Amino acid sequence: MKFCSACASPLELKIPTGDNRERHCCNHCGAIHYINPKIVVGTIPTYRGKVLLCKRAIEPRYGFWTLPAGFMELKETTHEGALRETWEEAGARVALGPLFTMFDVLRAEQVHLFFRATLEEPVFCAGEESLDVRLFDEQDIPWDELAFKTVTQTLKLFFEDRRQGRYSLHTGDVFGHTDWQPNDFLAQHKPYTQG
Amino acid sequence: MKFCSACASPLELKIPTGDNRERHCCNHCGAIHYINPKIVVGTIPTYRGKVLLCKRAIEPRYGFWTLPAGFMELKETTHEGALRETWEEAGARVALGPLFTMFDVLRAEQVHLFFRATLEEPVFCAGEESLDVRLFDEQDIPWDELAFKTVTQTLKLFFEDRRQGRYSLHTGDVFGHTDWQPNDFLAQHKPYTQG
Repeated sequence: MKFCSACASPLELKIPTGDNRERHCCNHCGAIHYINPKIVVGTIPTYRGKVLLCKRAIEPRYGFWTLPAGFMELKETTHEGALRETWEEAGARVALGPLFTMFDVLRAEQVHLFFRATLEEPVFCAGEESLDVRLFDEQDIPWDELAFKTVTQTLKLFFEDRRQGRYSLHTGDVFGHTDWQPNDFLAQHKPYTQG
Repeated sequence: MKFCSACASPLELKIPTGDNRERHCCNHCGAIHYINPKIVVGTIPTYRGKVLLCKRAIEPRYGFWTLPAGFMELKETTHEGALRETWEEAGARVALGPLFTMFDVLRAEQVHLFFRATLEEPVFCAGEESLDVRLFDEQDIPWDELAFKTVTQTLKLFFEDRRQGRYSLHTGDVFGHTDWQPNDFLAQHKPYTQG
């Protein structure tokens, strides 16, 4: 980000008044351009115990298998986004179930949300962004050809929970990485008691 | 968004090749500038049954009460963001519990996440963005002076669940509004059966 999208002036990276981190600031029109994580929404579509996966026809990870998922758009809810991506990538209409995983993907500046979902009929097809779409039994999942760690982790947890007969919400940092430690941050600040 | 943040050229609103919705496109350098919903992270901090609320010292909703919450930043997880906001706005260190609400706020182009949280000690103070921070019993919650509908709804659900002795995750569109109906979208597209 080099130029102001409001007035085309060069941007300066600095901490605005009242803020505590660097932002892209326009010294000409005063605009501050924030960059925040994006949301990826997807589903775990199942039909009679099998899971629907898509073989990617686009980069990154062309040719690898994934759960249907993509960036959440404006003017849609997380649920609608998950339904839309399942339609666009897998040609499948699903009934949406509860949120199953919410993973932080720090390196990609994303949060991934996967909902459980069921197909009423085995009706699906490869969308424009997929080379192939297939239903897989657990033992046939192409574990070594999965596109993203959040997909691998979501599928692993899904089959584990299914074996236990009880699904929970799973959240966290799927990579275990963070550049920012809240405890370090908190250690620098001494709170005081009210009144 | 009028100018390309990469090269300062004027942007055109058009549907890029292979896409299905209008984006801000640069005809000079080829950059496509996507706009996606932002994530707001916050907590429901409790101490001995009371809930910690902050009186806002900033717009929007200056002077109204809110749960500590704010925009998720890059290089932090949703959990870290929720801890950070609770620290910055309420001067409180909390132990984070499970995700409690995930609300779509279409008009604001945001998704709001609230985690349950507990204070070990009644230690807190008004941060720079707060005029006051106080612990409230359920009967003292200033319902008519709450800043945001997602805060009102989160608190209502929290007290309801607490009465029932069982907390669940609650998700959905808190306003019941949407400009985009997935069923309309799906109705225009006829899927076909594989193979």
